[in-house]
Amino acid sequence: MSIELPPVKELGAEIMSRAEALGRFSEGGPGVTRRFCTKEHRAAIDLIGGWMREAGMSATLDASGNLVGRYEGTKPGLPALMMGSHQDTVLSGGRYDGMLGIIAPISCVAGLNKRGVRLPHAIEIVAFGDEEGVRFQTTLLGSRAIAGTFDKSVLARKDSDGVTMEQAMRDFGLAPEKISTVARRKDQVLAFAEIHIEQGPVLESEGLAVGVVTAIAGCTRMAVRIAGMAGHAGTVPMTQRHDALAAAAEMVLAVEHTCGAEPGIVGTVGQIAAEPGAINVIPGAVRFSVDARAPENAKRKAVVERIKSAIQDIAERRGVEARIETTLDAKGSPCTPWMMDQFQEAVEAEGIEPLRLFSGAGHDAMALADLTDIGMLFVRCERGISHNPAEAITAADAGIGARVLLRFIENFRQPGN
Amino acid sequence: MSIELPPVKELGAEIMSRAEALGRFSEGGPGVTRRFCTKEHRAAIDLIGGWMREAGMSATLDASGNLVGRYEGTKPGLPALMMGSHQDTVLSGGRYDGMLGIIAPISCVAGLNKRGVRLPHAIEIVAFGDEEGVRFQTTLLGSRAIAGTFDKSVLARKDSDGVTMEQAMRDFGLAPEKISTVARRKDQVLAFAEIHIEQGPVLESEGLAVGVVTAIAGCTRMAVRIAGMAGHAGTVPMTQRHDALAAAAEMVLAVEHTCGAEPGIVGTVGQIAAEPGAINVIPGAVRFSVDARAPENAKRKAVVERIKSAIQDIAERRGVEARIETTLDAKGSPCTPWMMDQFQEAVEAEGIEPLRLFSGAGHDAMALADLTDIGMLFVRCERGISHNPAEAITAADAGIGARVLLRFIENFRQPGN
Repeated sequence: MSIELPPVKELGAEIMSRAEALGRFSEGGPGVTRRFCTKEHRAAIDLIGGWMREAGMSATLDASGNLVGRYEGTKPGLPALMMGSHQDTVLSGGRYDGMLGIIAPISCVAGLNKRGVRLPHAIEIVAFGDEEGVRFQTTLLGSRAIAGTFDKSVLARKDSDGVTMEQAMRDFGLAPEKISTVARRKDQVLAFAEIHIEQGPVLESEGLAVGVVTAIAGCTRMAVRIAGMAGHAGTVPMTQRHDALAAAAEMVLAVEHTCGAEPGIVGTVGQIAAEPGAINVIPGAVRFSVDARAPENAKRKAVVERIKSAIQDIAERRGVEARIETTLDAKGSPCTPWMMDQFQEAVEAEGIEPLRLFSGAGHDAMALADLTDIGMLFVRCERGISHNPAEAITAADAGIGARVLLRFIENFRQPGN
Repeated sequence: MSIELPPVKELGAEIMSRAEALGRFSEGGPGVTRRFCTKEHRAAIDLIGGWMREAGMSATLDASGNLVGRYEGTKPGLPALMMGSHQDTVLSGGRYDGMLGIIAPISCVAGLNKRGVRLPHAIEIVAFGDEEGVRFQTTLLGSRAIAGTFDKSVLARKDSDGVTMEQAMRDFGLAPEKISTVARRKDQVLAFAEIHIEQGPVLESEGLAVGVVTAIAGCTRMAVRIAGMAGHAGTVPMTQRHDALAAAAEMVLAVEHTCGAEPGIVGTVGQIAAEPGAINVIPGAVRFSVDARAPENAKRKAVVERIKSAIQDIAERRGVEARIETTLDAKGSPCTPWMMDQFQEAVEAEGIEPLRLFSGAGHDAMALADLTDIGMLFVRCERGISHNPAEAITAADAGIGARVLLRFIENFRQPGN
């Protein structure tokens, strides 16, 4: 299909100016802070709804706080290619994480609408109310409502002011008792596509504006406690020590080594504390965290087993005790192969090498995977920095991302069609 | 001189019961935690002051937080044989480290006082306010004030609540601006003698209750700060990381390895902190402490250089920055030969083989060595465990230690006299 596409420059400029406009709705402090069911949330969806209508879409706030834009296909009521991402941010986050996945598809639909193009399927764009989960310590709230996997028990959770989620939703004009009606039937949604900043350094280091996501990594988290023997730093000979921190140091390196042995796996020790924590006392106990991710669940499980076994070996050799508690075991979400192929075609059509990479961070597409086939397109971000006021993308990359997405949308067909 | 000594059993029972009473003044948690200028410090010196007065001594709190007991000699104002040790503890420490060196001499003076004995010199017993330096990351605070080597710049240091040492001292009723008046003239102090638990395994393995100390090992302490690059735990490939904690882990093992290469040298990393310290963020910065000790100064300096060089090598290889600040460089302090000889006579008079051994731990006597001649007597402790709630000595050993100390005191004479 030959397509008359809007220029990259024009798309990029529109996306950057809209990201800036949305970023102004912030609770204050550095960067953008916009939480679920706040006046900033309201201001954001009012603005986004306006852009949706301007692009020829209807815009409706669902009972769970998602703003849903719909652009009908060749006839009303056709099943939809769903796109979107989250409107909320972390505390002091950036302007692109989530927002790009709302703004870019709207610009694409505006392009279709301008040319009077109707596709053999509808398009829906969702501005999910809450993905980061900052206000109520939840995640993927909006996308789970649509996927039909919303856990009603979270409605009782309270924010830092003691307001329950249920109350916050009512105050926002939502209908928490009707959340189940938000869930879609499988035959209403053809697939879910999300465009998102990479939040990592791979595309930048490869010199590419965009990349095709293969999977959203699963994540295992562990809390490790090492019990050794405290003692006086001056009087216990090195040969008689059971230093919990020296043991933990070896384990930190084992995590690094084990996860570094194979590409695609990442492992991080982000927290560590030594007890008693005095300059002149051999640490008697150490606690540290492990976060391990891999695109495939089998790989992740295998690497977690290798980490656990390395920790126990080190503990045994050093005469310390290691207790490992698994605090999170979230399975990964592979992107659907035919979705990856169609994104790849669109990337190639822009003359870009179609790099495939996995996502180490979680995204709304993870929740939608329970409902439909998913695909994701990553856009390069500066130095991989995200969840930070310094989060940045270029207008050129935003424009390229939107052009690739538009190609993907216009050429979208279900497998076998 | 024939001396009518109190029985070992009686002395031992008194010392054990007083150590237990003092140990109750603790901030909570396992073992004893008593830091400088806290309400626990106040409670401890109130109790110690009572014991001093009961033993016929005056008891005065000096401007730097030392409680000084004085027992006059045959006439008032004579120069003093000074004894004592520190009232403060490490975090979760034991009941004897420091305290034995306060309690045992008080029991000795009580014995003299009961018999109406006045010596040709005064006796002073000091409960030093701060030796461990837990609260303000300082050491030998009280003994340095008396030795005239107090470094006023440490008054600006802050504790973990942001309170400066100067403020903490004022809140305690002390006079930081008058610390220089605490310093003694050389002609006021004949010598300094400290009785202390060994905090190591030598006396136990030799089957001896007490031993004569030959030297206190020198100690170098460093504060190391590693600056790497923070990042999302899920999105930065292992090959692109500059993980400050992984670098620090390698450095902790380098300290262990370097110090373990030669007997008599010890090295410890007791403190570590990672920033930002979130489970899903690669640490961008880490701070840790290094404590290295050796009996000879040349050996210590050589091992410190090897540690520094290993840290810089690791930093360079990993693309992180290491800043090393030397926070303490305390030379070793040999005990004065004539003091060792007089302690040895006292040990032999109790029918004990006079083993001589060096101290791997620092003691207040180190600071006093700048003012006067020093000597130390070690008492056996269980399994060499110290700086630990499990620190233990027997009542019999405590009694033997006090008897040896009393013999030493009554026979004390300056060399040539």
